[in-house]
Amino acid sequence: MEVTSGKNTSCCLNINGPVEKMKRLPRLTWRKIWKVGKEDKRRVIHSLKVGVALSLVSLLYLMEPLFNGIGENAIWAVMTVVVVLEFTAGATLYKGLNRGLGTVLAGLLAFLIAHMAKESGNIFHATFIGTAVFLVGAISTYMRFFPHIKKNYDYGVVIFLLTFNLITVSSYRLDSVLKITHERLYTIAIGCGICLLMTLLVFPIWSGEDLHLSTVAKFDGLAKSIAVCINEYFSDNIQQQENDAENSMEMEDPIYKGYKTVLDSKSSDENLALYASWEPRYLRHCTRYPWHQYVKLGNVLRHFGYTLVALHGCLQTEIKTPQSVRVLFKDPCNRLAGELTKALKELGDSVRNRRKYCPEMLSNHVHEALQDLIDALKSQPRLFLGTNSNTNILLALATLAAKQKSGKDFVVSLSSVNTDSSDDGPPRLGLSQDFLKEGDKKQNTLRLTLSKIGITSLEFCEALPFAAFASLLIEAVARLDLVIEEVVELGKVAHFKEYSHHDDHEFINVVVSDNNPRERNEVPSSQLATD
Amino acid sequence: MEVTSGKNTSCCLNINGPVEKMKRLPRLTWRKIWKVGKEDKRRVIHSLKVGVALSLVSLLYLMEPLFNGIGENAIWAVMTVVVVLEFTAGATLYKGLNRGLGTVLAGLLAFLIAHMAKESGNIFHATFIGTAVFLVGAISTYMRFFPHIKKNYDYGVVIFLLTFNLITVSSYRLDSVLKITHERLYTIAIGCGICLLMTLLVFPIWSGEDLHLSTVAKFDGLAKSIAVCINEYFSDNIQQQENDAENSMEMEDPIYKGYKTVLDSKSSDENLALYASWEPRYLRHCTRYPWHQYVKLGNVLRHFGYTLVALHGCLQTEIKTPQSVRVLFKDPCNRLAGELTKALKELGDSVRNRRKYCPEMLSNHVHEALQDLIDALKSQPRLFLGTNSNTNILLALATLAAKQKSGKDFVVSLSSVNTDSSDDGPPRLGLSQDFLKEGDKKQNTLRLTLSKIGITSLEFCEALPFAAFASLLIEAVARLDLVIEEVVELGKVAHFKEYSHHDDHEFINVVVSDNNPRERNEVPSSQLATD
Repeated sequence: MEVTSGKNTSCCLNINGPVEKMKRLPRLTWRKIWKVGKEDKRRVIHSLKVGVALSLVSLLYLMEPLFNGIGENAIWAVMTVVVVLEFTAGATLYKGLNRGLGTVLAGLLAFLIAHMAKESGNIFHATFIGTAVFLVGAISTYMRFFPHIKKNYDYGVVIFLLTFNLITVSSYRLDSVLKITHERLYTIAIGCGICLLMTLLVFPIWSGEDLHLSTVAKFDGLAKSIAVCINEYFSDNIQQQENDAENSMEMEDPIYKGYKTVLDSKSSDENLALYASWEPRYLRHCTRYPWHQYVKLGNVLRHFGYTLVALHGCLQTEIKTPQSVRVLFKDPCNRLAGELTKALKELGDSVRNRRKYCPEMLSNHVHEALQDLIDALKSQPRLFLGTNSNTNILLALATLAAKQKSGKDFVVSLSSVNTDSSDDGPPRLGLSQDFLKEGDKKQNTLRLTLSKIGITSLEFCEALPFAAFASLLIEAVARLDLVIEEVVELGKVAHFKEYSHHDDHEFINVVVSDNNPRERNEVPSSQLATD
Repeated sequence: MEVTSGKNTSCCLNINGPVEKMKRLPRLTWRKIWKVGKEDKRRVIHSLKVGVALSLVSLLYLMEPLFNGIGENAIWAVMTVVVVLEFTAGATLYKGLNRGLGTVLAGLLAFLIAHMAKESGNIFHATFIGTAVFLVGAISTYMRFFPHIKKNYDYGVVIFLLTFNLITVSSYRLDSVLKITHERLYTIAIGCGICLLMTLLVFPIWSGEDLHLSTVAKFDGLAKSIAVCINEYFSDNIQQQENDAENSMEMEDPIYKGYKTVLDSKSSDENLALYASWEPRYLRHCTRYPWHQYVKLGNVLRHFGYTLVALHGCLQTEIKTPQSVRVLFKDPCNRLAGELTKALKELGDSVRNRRKYCPEMLSNHVHEALQDLIDALKSQPRLFLGTNSNTNILLALATLAAKQKSGKDFVVSLSSVNTDSSDDGPPRLGLSQDFLKEGDKKQNTLRLTLSKIGITSLEFCEALPFAAFASLLIEAVARLDLVIEEVVELGKVAHFKEYSHHDDHEFINVVVSDNNPRERNEVPSSQLATD
């Protein structure tokens, strides 16, 4: 509520600068606190959960009967809760199970070593413990560099080392190693138990769900990027385009915003997939839910994103595509981009609702649009490769022929052909100066004829940007095929719901009709219930 | 040594599969262990350091006089060493200082709260502690979501929470809170001291150095990628190209290998820069060493990498650029790519040796090469925009004219013009079927004439890939300018050594001459000594 009243004070900002600043500090701080919570409300829930868990575990120490049972070691339970309770269920499970495993293994090893050293004299005992500490420390630290261990058990190794040292070193002064080991295990188990209770049963936050939603968001972001990109490219307002290009490096650019999250998603994807793989909720069909497939899908989406970055670069190049060229290819490009957007959205929807889609329908539309664009490229212009003089010879020949015939019927028949493409601005003729010198009349006749039949000669250099743009669009289709492959694979390994024409119908008419609104909404929830 | 002898057993692999496998297991494990150490020898050093540090800190417990001074709480020092001693000095400092700060602040707060609650009755005391634990737990967990705190003090907040709970909860049963607080601080300080000693003085490993070297490696990787990319594009062996395209998604592709590390470097760069910012070694000129500038440089290099991905995509498209087109532009493209490679290498060397470079020299060469390519694109081909029929009319006119003249002098004069571009394979004529039907003789004459004068008509669609390739090369130059900007900025804020013509001379003749080899080698070490 205080956020909205901030405007009132801004008028007197310049008077008493520092004092005003001090006065505004609490408001600014509050706004910051508010923003963090508003971005993701689960943060507030998680904070409260941690508070409750800590209070609960403190009861072990504070309440007389509980304390008598456990004793001073209850403090280990408190420590466990602080360290293990993480934001998502997966991360908590990862840490909790690693902590448990590490403690058990370390306890066993420490017990063994303490037992071996017990019989010997004091000095030998100390040396033996020192050597064991050195060796176990060095070996387990080295083990942390193995990629597989680093990925899955890094925290477990740290806890192993911690517990091992704790017990081994303590065993030198204490008689009953078994008692320490037992107590540590016991209290850590209580701590982990409270953490699991809070994380799995009270407003659980799932890494798997996060990964799922972030993947869906990627599809939407990419689709939006393409749509805006193609709109800007074919928009008539060149001034606006230039402004857009200036802003392009900033965060506000909607194209950049669309693909930005995709580009830098690698490490967060991998972390989420790792944590999700510890979550029990997605065990079904007696197999683990294939989170690694989400990582793979993220990979191909990232490669799709790279193409989009290059496409975005086409908007920013200094050599602009002439309006006349753009007009020629506007429709097929728009159609292809539209189909790409639609395909990405449908793929995103398919992942979102965990149902398969009709691959033929999707791919056919895109490839039809692609064929249209290629046909347009093939039919429209031809590229004459040769030196200037050769081209001019052709033109000279044309002139000669025109002069020879010079019949009105010929000119008229030509003028009827395709004049619409040369409407905007005078066409640029590829005539060399030598040729132009030959005579004004001849040249004028030719220019008239040529302008009427709508032949526009362009520098190859000027057509470059469009060629690059079109080529990258085609590249995007190729990348889309890879994305489709991975989505199909995901649908297979994750046992997505079979595609039905009902879904299809529903998808197409999602805005227009509402013949089956319940089914659409129920798909995810019914999925979740049976997981 | 065992690694090399592995080949001997591979011949009898198929006999006694599982038994053989069991026999090979120790060898495979050993090979794996060997590989991890060989990849980075500092891993072995770090492991030994951890072992030594743990043995040292265990002495506190094992040696009678030391133990009598500190008591059982020596175990906290052991825990500190396990948790704080990280691979690089920066990471250790980050954790150590966070741990220290968190412990001190938590100690103060816990002492205050324990003092406030002491006067009251037992039940109120327990309630008060429970509430405090809940509030502090929830608030500090929420604070961990603030981006600034998450980035710099995440570990500190965890330790704050841990220590606070430890002391506050313990204070309920123990009388002297001051004693626990004091002991915990004391032992953690000893642990941190040992960690800092090991990390800063014994074979120190610097995050800053890692970041510096990884940035240099990025330049080298990108340079290599460009060089290989351009080589493959213009290589005559199309079969080989196709093989390369098939392998392109695999790791072995040298182009992919070159830019791969650049693309996924964001999170590791940011971590290294964070840790490096805690390292004291680079404090000079009374300012912090600007590690954030390395992150910025990494950003523009990543964007350069995206262009490279698109360029790589040009090698993989199904529509290949015809050999004739490629031959035309081979030299300017090669030159531009060569200059790009050289520029990247020089920039990498400039960062590596921490010396400025001559920006004019570098940029001029690249822009000269760029101008060459643009000139080549401008001078060579022209693009006629119009419908098929129009183009055919032009050709028809040409034929008519040719028939009309049909003098040998004309054909001869044409045949002398530019025949080299149509040497490879028959030129493809852009004639429609209707026109071809008109008569074989006419057509043959025309084809002969046109082939002699070297006019090759190409589908626009076929020229697309090259246009995209050239356009992306030009794009790469634009991205290079951004990279240069950031390197210049880095040189400014990091006070790089001034550029001198000596360096330049040395750089160019680095292999050929050895007029000043000492200077080149001494630059980094003398830099380091004065830091």
